[in-house]
Amino acid sequence: MLSFECDYNKGAHKKILERLLETNEEPAKGYGFDPYCASAAEKILKACELAGGQVQFLTGGTQTNQIVIDAMLAGYEAVVAADTGHVNFHEAGAIEYTGHKVLTIPHVNGKLDAGDLEQYLKDYYADDNHEHMARPGMVYISHPSEYGTLYSKAELEALSSVCKTYEIPLFMDGARLGYGLMSKDTDITLPDIAKLCDVFYIGGTKVGALCGEAVVFTHGNMPKHFLTTVKQHGALNAKGRLLGVQFDTLFTDDLYFEISKHAIDMAEKLKKAFREKGYKFLIDSPTNQIFVILENDKKKELEKEALFGFWEKYDETHTVVRIATSWGTTEEELNALIELI
Amino acid sequence: MLSFECDYNKGAHKKILERLLETNEEPAKGYGFDPYCASAAEKILKACELAGGQVQFLTGGTQTNQIVIDAMLAGYEAVVAADTGHVNFHEAGAIEYTGHKVLTIPHVNGKLDAGDLEQYLKDYYADDNHEHMARPGMVYISHPSEYGTLYSKAELEALSSVCKTYEIPLFMDGARLGYGLMSKDTDITLPDIAKLCDVFYIGGTKVGALCGEAVVFTHGNMPKHFLTTVKQHGALNAKGRLLGVQFDTLFTDDLYFEISKHAIDMAEKLKKAFREKGYKFLIDSPTNQIFVILENDKKKELEKEALFGFWEKYDETHTVVRIATSWGTTEEELNALIELI
Amino acid sequence: MLSFECDYNKGAHKKILERLLETNEEPAKGYGFDPYCASAAEKILKACELAGGQVQFLTGGTQTNQIVIDAMLAGYEAVVAADTGHVNFHEAGAIEYTGHKVLTIPHVNGKLDAGDLEQYLKDYYADDNHEHMARPGMVYISHPSEYGTLYSKAELEALSSVCKTYEIPLFMDGARLGYGLMSKDTDITLPDIAKLCDVFYIGGTKVGALCGEAVVFTHGNMPKHFLTTVKQHGALNAKGRLLGVQFDTLFTDDLYFEISKHAIDMAEKLKKAFREKGYKFLIDSPTNQIFVILENDKKKELEKEALFGFWEKYDETHTVVRIATSWGTTEEELNALIELI
Amino acid sequence: MLSFECDYNKGAHKKILERLLETNEEPAKGYGFDPYCASAAEKILKACELAGGQVQFLTGGTQTNQIVIDAMLAGYEAVVAADTGHVNFHEAGAIEYTGHKVLTIPHVNGKLDAGDLEQYLKDYYADDNHEHMARPGMVYISHPSEYGTLYSKAELEALSSVCKTYEIPLFMDGARLGYGLMSKDTDITLPDIAKLCDVFYIGGTKVGALCGEAVVFTHGNMPKHFLTTVKQHGALNAKGRLLGVQFDTLFTDDLYFEISKHAIDMAEKLKKAFREKGYKFLIDSPTNQIFVILENDKKKELEKEALFGFWEKYDETHTVVRIATSWGTTEEELNALIELI
Repeated sequence: MLSFECDYNKGAHKKILERLLETNEEPAKGYGFDPYCASAAEKILKACELAGGQVQFLTGGTQTNQIVIDAMLAGYEAVVAADTGHVNFHEAGAIEYTGHKVLTIPHVNGKLDAGDLEQYLKDYYADDNHEHMARPGMVYISHPSEYGTLYSKAELEALSSVCKTYEIPLFMDGARLGYGLMSKDTDITLPDIAKLCDVFYIGGTKVGALCGEAVVFTHGNMPKHFLTTVKQHGALNAKGRLLGVQFDTLFTDDLYFEISKHAIDMAEKLKKAFREKGYKFLIDSPTNQIFVILENDKKKELEKEALFGFWEKYDETHTVVRIATSWGTTEEELNALIELI
Repeated sequence: MLSFECDYNKGAHKKILERLLETNEEPAKGYGFDPYCASAAEKILKACELAGGQVQFLTGGTQTNQIVIDAMLAGYEAVVAADTGHVNFHEAGAIEYTGHKVLTIPHVNGKLDAGDLEQYLKDYYADDNHEHMARPGMVYISHPSEYGTLYSKAELEALSSVCKTYEIPLFMDGARLGYGLMSKDTDITLPDIAKLCDVFYIGGTKVGALCGEAVVFTHGNMPKHFLTTVKQHGALNAKGRLLGVQFDTLFTDDLYFEISKHAIDMAEKLKKAFREKGYKFLIDSPTNQIFVILENDKKKELEKEALFGFWEKYDETHTVVRIATSWGTTEEELNALIELI
Repeated sequence: MLSFECDYNKGAHKKILERLLETNEEPAKGYGFDPYCASAAEKILKACELAGGQVQFLTGGTQTNQIVIDAMLAGYEAVVAADTGHVNFHEAGAIEYTGHKVLTIPHVNGKLDAGDLEQYLKDYYADDNHEHMARPGMVYISHPSEYGTLYSKAELEALSSVCKTYEIPLFMDGARLGYGLMSKDTDITLPDIAKLCDVFYIGGTKVGALCGEAVVFTHGNMPKHFLTTVKQHGALNAKGRLLGVQFDTLFTDDLYFEISKHAIDMAEKLKKAFREKGYKFLIDSPTNQIFVILENDKKKELEKEALFGFWEKYDETHTVVRIATSWGTTEEELNALIELI
Repeated sequence: MLSFECDYNKGAHKKILERLLETNEEPAKGYGFDPYCASAAEKILKACELAGGQVQFLTGGTQTNQIVIDAMLAGYEAVVAADTGHVNFHEAGAIEYTGHKVLTIPHVNGKLDAGDLEQYLKDYYADDNHEHMARPGMVYISHPSEYGTLYSKAELEALSSVCKTYEIPLFMDGARLGYGLMSKDTDITLPDIAKLCDVFYIGGTKVGALCGEAVVFTHGNMPKHFLTTVKQHGALNAKGRLLGVQFDTLFTDDLYFEISKHAIDMAEKLKKAFREKGYKFLIDSPTNQIFVILENDKKKELEKEALFGFWEKYDETHTVVRIATSWGTTEEELNALIELI
C-alpha cells in the first residue's frame, strides 16, 4: 500500500539514526544540558543569523504551541489566530486547557490577513467593554498554513508591523517550516522569519526527525524560568540528547534544507502529473501538501492501493483529498502513484 | 569522567536502535495506531498476565504522572502521596498545574504506609467540613520509591485493600520499575502489580529506551476518550512508532528484565565494594540507587573523576551522594569507580 | 441624568431589603444550609413544577456559567454556543480559564438554531480525526439572548431533542429569565424550561436582587460533590443566607414575575413611543432590551440627559444603542425619557 | 439555641442595611465604578495611611485568596504558607485549581516563622535541581491566624524583610483583620500592615458585612488589567455598589474598628468566665476565637443549648471546641452562655 496520507509516516532520516548510534554510549547530562543540544542550538542560530537568539527543544507540535503560548501570555490574555489555525481546530483544546482563549479571525486561503488583524485589534480597543473580554496578547500564524499556503515577505512584514504597533508578539508555528522555506514560490528566508517573528519553531517531526521541534526566541525574549515551565507542562525530556542529536544532524551540512527540497521536488512532480491528467486542485499549494479534487469512484479505486487524507466533500460526486510528500518519499513510491492516477 | 549521577545518561539499548533502523522505511499510521505499538501492547499485557488490560504509550515520567492523575480524577479531587513522592517535590508543580492538589502523608523510608493512609482517609471523612477540602480521589506510590526502596507484596496488598475500601484507584509510578522487579530483595512480580494496582506504568526512559513510558490500565478502566485527553495535554506523538518500536523491543525475549537485572548486578557489586572499604549508607536500598555517606574531602577528591548526585548534607563533615547504576553501566566503568573509592 | 444603559443600575426590590432587615439578627448556618435557602429552593422547584429538581445559589452570571459548565463537562469536553453567546464574548475567557473550549456556531438573531446544531454535531462525529478535536459535551443557550430575542417553545423543543439524541446536556443561561417569561411574545413557561433543559438558572442580579442566580438541575443531575466544586471555584458564600433571603422573597407571592412584567410593560411603552416618533429598531426584541437606531447628532443630544449602552455603528451617520428597562424603572423615568426623544 | 460556632452566623451591621436602603433607588454604574466604591476605597486608604495604594472589592475570602495569588504569581510560581494556612487546608484546593502549588512550612502556633521561611528559601535556591521544582513566588500569612493567634510587629517586620531579600511579595489574609487589630494583645496597626505587606485584605464577611473583602495593594502594585482577571475568575459583581456601600459604611466613623472591638470585649469576658470556672484552653488566643477543652459529657450537655465548632479530639475523655464571638454577639447571648458553662 502506498502511503501519501501525511508527512509523518516514516521514521527518521538515516543520518539521524546513524548519529544516534554513534553517540549512544557517551554519557551526557540530562534535560537539554548535553553537548548535542548546545551544538544544535548554535547551528540553528547561525542559520537564522541571530546573535541574541535562544533555542529550546520540545517534542511535538501541539506541545510546542501549548507551551509557547501559555508561557508568553499573561493569565488574562488570549491568542489571536486564523479560524483555520491548528491551535483552533485540531489540538483538542490544548490552548484552552492552559486557560487561554483562542480568538479567531476568518482566514484568507488559510492565512491571517494583516489588515483583518489590525481591524480586529482596533475594534477591541475601541470597545468600551473591552476589559470584560479576553485580551489579545499574541498572534499565532502557521507557515506553511494548514492549507499548504505561504505568507509572502510583504505579508509577513505587514503582520509583524501590526504586532509591533499593538505591542504583542508574533508567533510562527513552523511544524512544516522546511517545506515552506524550500518552496519554489517563496521569497522568505529563515533569517527573514527570525527577524520578523518574536518566536517561531523549526519543525522536526514532519521534516526528517523521529520527533522534535526547535523553538527559537529571536531577541532574548525567552520567558523567565522557561525550563521550569516546560517541566511543569510535563514536556522536559530527561534524555534531551535525543532532540539535540537530531537537530544537530539536521543542521549539519544543510541536511534540513536538502531533505525539505526533496519533498518539494516530489510534490512539484506529482502536481505536474495530476495537472497533465486533467485533475483539478482545491487550493494552489506551493508546498508539500496537495489538495486534489477526485471523482468519488476514482477515489475509491485509488484507495485500494494508496492512502490519502480526507479533506472535505467537494460536491455530490467529488471529494477533496490531501496528498502529502515528505523528506522520506522515494522516487519509486512517487512513480507508482503517478502510474495509478 | 565517570558518570554515575543518574540512570538516564546514555542513549538506548543497542537492540532498540537497530530495530528503529530496520523499521525506519516502513510507512505506518500515526498517533499510536502503528503495528509496533499494537505488538508492544500485546507483549506487555502478556507479561502482566492481564486479559482485560489496556496500554497507552507516553514520552516521559512527569508527563505520565500528570496525564494519568488528571484523567482519572474528577475536577474536585486530589491525589494522595507520600511527602517524598516525585509528584509532590520534583515535578515543578505539574500536578497542581492541572488543577489538582497533592495531599501528602509523611513517608516511611520513602514509602506510603497503608495504616497511615487508612487513618488519613478515615480522618477526612470524619471531618464535618470535609466538603470544604480537596477530596482524596486516588493514591500515588512510586516503586522503587525516590529513596530506592521497595514495597513488599504484603505492603502493596495492604495499600490496595485500603484503596478498594475507600473506592479510589491505586496508581504506581514505575519510572524505574525494572530495577524494582529485578531487585534481589523483592517478592513482587509484574503480574502482582497488575493485579493490585488500578493503573501503573513501566518506565522506559530510565530502563533502556531513548524515551517512553508504558501506562497500563489493569481492568478496562482507561478513562473515556483518553486519546483526546493525551492530545489536549500536548502529549500525543505524531510518530507513535518511536514508542512502539522501543517497547516492542524491550518486551521481546525479556530484554527489559535482562537489562534491569544487569543494573542490579552492577549495584550489588558496587555496594559490596563500598561496604568492604568501610563506607556507610544512608538507606539500605535494594535497587539501582545507592545512597553513600562520604567524608567531604573524599567527596571532593572523587568528584575529580566521577559524577554523583548530591542527596543531602549528613553532618558538618559528611555528605550523602546518590550513585546510580543503569542498564548501560559497563563493567569497565564500574571497576574504574571501585578502584577510585 | 436618566439611566437606561443597563438593568443592573439600582439596588434591590424594596421587599428584599426589608426581609434582609427582618431576618438580620437570627443566627443561621453558613454556606447555604440556612432555612432561607431551603425555603427559596422549595418555592423555586414548585414554580418549576419539578419534583426531582435541585437548586444551588450562586452570586453572578459569569460565575454561574463558569461553574456549571466546568462541573458538567469532562476534562476533554467543550461547550457549544452561538458565536454571540455571553460565554463566548463577554466573560473575559472565563470558560477557557477552566480549561474548556467554547465551540461556536453562527447565531440566528442571537439564537442557536437546532438544525445548525445538529449539523455541527453530525459533522464532528463524521470527521475521522474528531478524537483530535475538543469534544462537544454540552450546549449553552441564553434566554433571553444577548440580542433580547427569545426561543419559541418549538425551537427549544428542537434543541432539547438534538441534545437528547447526542446525549449531551442543554444548559440555559437565564440571567434575564424573568424578562423572557413575562414577554408578551413568548409561549414558554418556567415549567417548560424545567422540562426541556437539563440545567438552567433564574437570574436575580438583573431581576430585583442585589446579587444572586438560582441554578436549577432539573432531574437529580447536580454533579457529585457540587458544593466542593463551588468552594474550589471561590464561589461559596459564607453567608448563604444573603442569597436565600433574596430568592425566598422573589418567589413569594410571585414577586419575581410581577417585577419582570413591570420591566416588560415599561419596555413596550417605550418601544411604542420610539415607533410613533419614527425611530427604527435594529432587532425586534420582545423583552426588556431595545435596540434603537439613532442619528448620531440626536444620540449626542440625548446623551446629555440619559445614559444608553453603545451597541454598534449602524452606518456613517447612525448608531445603534441598547436601552434597557428593568424591575426598577419608574414611570417618572420612563416619561422623562419619552419626552426627550 | 445559642449560636457560637462561627463569626458569620448573622446578617450585617444595622447601619449597613440602612445605608443600602438609603442608596437603593440611585442609579449607579456597574462593576465597581459607582461612587460608593470610590468613597469606600478613599476611606480605606486613608485609614491605612497609604498614598499610592489601590483597592479592589471582592465577595468572599477563598475567592480573594484565589484571585490575588493567581494574579500575582507567574505561571510557574507557587505560594508559600504555613501548613495550617487556610489556603492549604480549607479551600477545597482553590489555589491548586488555578494551577499553583501551595508550598508548606510547619506552623508555629498557627503562624509562619520568619526564620523557617528564610531557611526554606535558602534551601530552595541551594538545591541544584530547583529549576525542577515549583518556584516560591509569594508568601501567604493569615492575621489573625487559623488558630486565632497574632503576629507581633517584630515578627511581621522579620517576614517582610525576608520577602524583600528574596524579592517575593508578602500577602496577608485579613478575613478577620478587625479582630486582630482590636485585640488587647497586639502592637500592630493598620498602617503597619499597609507598610509591611505588599497586598492584604480587610475582611467584611466576618466583620459586619453581608459579604465582601477589600483587597489593598499597598504600593501601586495591583496587577495589570486586574479587572479582566477578576471577571475571568467569575468574581466581578455587576452591582459593585453592594460592596461599595458596605465598606463605605464600615469605614465611616470607625464603625469597622468599633464593632471589631465589641467582639473582642465579648471574647475577653467569655474567656474570663471559662477561666474562673476552671476550664483550660488549647491555645491562648487573643482574638475572637476561643479554643476550650471540654470534658466530653459536659460538651454533650452544653450542645443541647449552644452551637460550637468542633476543633479536635484532645484525649479519650476531652474535646477541643472553637467558640467564636463576633460584631453581632449580644450581651444577652453572652450572659446566657456564661450561665450555661
